[in-house]
Amino acid sequence: MTPIVGVIGGGQLARMMIPPAVALGVELRVFAEARGESADLAVTTTGDFRDIESVVEFARSVDVITFDHEHVPQEVIAAVVASGTPVRPKPEALLYAQDKLLMRERLGELGLPVPDWARIHTTAELDDFLAAHDGRAIVKTPRGGYDGKGVRLVRSAGEVEEWLAPGGELLVEELVEFRRELAQLVARRPSGELALWPVVETIQRDGVCAEVIAPAPRSAGKLADLAADIAVTIAEQLDVVGVLAVELFETIDESLVINELAMRPHNTGHWSIDGSTTSQFEQHLRAVLDLPLGATGCREPWSVMVNVLGGPDSGSLTDRYPLALRDQPTVKFHSYGKESRPGRKVGHVTAGGDDLDDVVYRARAASEFFGTAT
Amino acid sequence: MTPIVGVIGGGQLARMMIPPAVALGVELRVFAEARGESADLAVTTTGDFRDIESVVEFARSVDVITFDHEHVPQEVIAAVVASGTPVRPKPEALLYAQDKLLMRERLGELGLPVPDWARIHTTAELDDFLAAHDGRAIVKTPRGGYDGKGVRLVRSAGEVEEWLAPGGELLVEELVEFRRELAQLVARRPSGELALWPVVETIQRDGVCAEVIAPAPRSAGKLADLAADIAVTIAEQLDVVGVLAVELFETIDESLVINELAMRPHNTGHWSIDGSTTSQFEQHLRAVLDLPLGATGCREPWSVMVNVLGGPDSGSLTDRYPLALRDQPTVKFHSYGKESRPGRKVGHVTAGGDDLDDVVYRARAASEFFGTAT
Repeated sequence: MTPIVGVIGGGQLARMMIPPAVALGVELRVFAEARGESADLAVTTTGDFRDIESVVEFARSVDVITFDHEHVPQEVIAAVVASGTPVRPKPEALLYAQDKLLMRERLGELGLPVPDWARIHTTAELDDFLAAHDGRAIVKTPRGGYDGKGVRLVRSAGEVEEWLAPGGELLVEELVEFRRELAQLVARRPSGELALWPVVETIQRDGVCAEVIAPAPRSAGKLADLAADIAVTIAEQLDVVGVLAVELFETIDESLVINELAMRPHNTGHWSIDGSTTSQFEQHLRAVLDLPLGATGCREPWSVMVNVLGGPDSGSLTDRYPLALRDQPTVKFHSYGKESRPGRKVGHVTAGGDDLDDVVYRARAASEFFGTAT
Repeated sequence: MTPIVGVIGGGQLARMMIPPAVALGVELRVFAEARGESADLAVTTTGDFRDIESVVEFARSVDVITFDHEHVPQEVIAAVVASGTPVRPKPEALLYAQDKLLMRERLGELGLPVPDWARIHTTAELDDFLAAHDGRAIVKTPRGGYDGKGVRLVRSAGEVEEWLAPGGELLVEELVEFRRELAQLVARRPSGELALWPVVETIQRDGVCAEVIAPAPRSAGKLADLAADIAVTIAEQLDVVGVLAVELFETIDESLVINELAMRPHNTGHWSIDGSTTSQFEQHLRAVLDLPLGATGCREPWSVMVNVLGGPDSGSLTDRYPLALRDQPTVKFHSYGKESRPGRKVGHVTAGGDDLDDVVYRARAASEFFGTAT
């Protein structure tokens, strides 16, 4: 029988699951909000992912449910589980990727390295935290934030007053002094099998991932081991199934602190499509179907991924191909089939090779052809 | 604007164009004979590819027409061209991949190395050819043959009498003494840009491609140059656009003789999906859209592709994944979404690495899991 994977959400992550599904002979069915989204080719249902009845009906047509984003409410997921279709990752695990307060609490309980943090309900509590942390802190909405949204560096409690509706709560964290940001991706099957890609360096701009270098330069040894230990502990202790991305700060004392979690393929793993024997998208399909995981070695010594943010001011990415493809014949181009919009992730490019400077040069050059609407 | 490529034919070649189309942001529309074929995900029209009206209507909805097979009649293609949609390769070129008599004639005119051959209409003519060639010859129907169909080794004219209907004609060729078979693939744009993959060794069984080794061992130097020269000459002189596959015999005097031509992605290029910077399927899309071609270097020193022929006696390829994927984590698996049938191409596997013996071992081992209905 052809295995059928159902994905809630029709964005670029669902889109990038299509190629490995075609290769493996897995059927992909996508539940999107509307037609014309990035994963349109595989969309079989459109509807509101907050509507229990629609999602449960969709889930009846597939072997397993997984996600393009983490915004599906717990009660919707619980109803799918109750209806008999497995959901991977399961809601008890996904909760920690949905709620940053619960995530901080749980990771702290596991003894994992997290920034100083507090749950706050009032500006007075935030003032206390600021006073204890050199007058600066990061404030985050516990749910719904992504790509820099719902995250603010604050110096006074007034800056987030509108987030503090009566009864609301926020996560406040110390501003971690870090050298750079890293990400460790791991995939895990229900049976417990794990596969880790090398830890990567991620370069953020305005809170959004801009570039990824795989593997992270100067990470061999202690740093790589530490990143792997953290990701494996989280995957196992939270019983994650599928791809888990752990975003990390490399601190000035050569240690690591956990920034964010995602339980799905992640921007910091896009390099693996072209750069690893098994891409994060193929691995996610294998994992949620409880199939054996693929090898995660690097195809080339260095891979560099650069996001295309915003997109051309006029026309589409493909309109720029006559110049871009001619100039960079070794670079792999990925379009998400989206309209340009300032700051929007509309595609990415990946270069690979032996010489890191050259690989960075080619990847950045390729991305430049797609202008910017930022 | 999103470029739209229309493909006539819904087999595995159209299917394997889907992943690069998704990556590049190209829309693929497939004209298939029925729903449920290998490329079903991209099928937008079903109908008879011999029906001029249906194909012309389909062609109006796309930017360029290309092919999954070479069985589309010339009059259908001519009608599409007349209607204004470009067809690539164009009918004047495709003709030589459709008609083996015309192909032999044309390649001979170009001074390219072909076997001794003759056009025959009667058993008497075949007897004469046999008498002049040690009593053995290869007889081929000029059109419609593939995978060993329409090809016969004969020792007496009576063996192909039923092929010689009144007014019919056949191609007869000498039996070439060869060491091994090779294939040279090249892609060409309308503007003339060319890109060649390394020449590969192909191992045939019962007239069907069984394994491909890329690059062909012991091919560096003279042999590779000769194969490249032949393919470039054919691509340029026949004004081929898209992927051209030239199947070659390596003769006992260390030279090459042309066996067959195909003007589309070809089984001998499947290794390139995992083994080359640019796969033959991505390159075919680039070429027919007149976009710059991608680099064709090898990702690893050796790639070996093994076809899955026949398929499991019961169940599907995916039913065997729990064992196959566990045993061969580095091998890439490709299912064509087809039912098992003796001798049918239902998928392929590709292994890569530094040590050829090991790569062959892993690729063959992986294919063994899919049993055989042959």
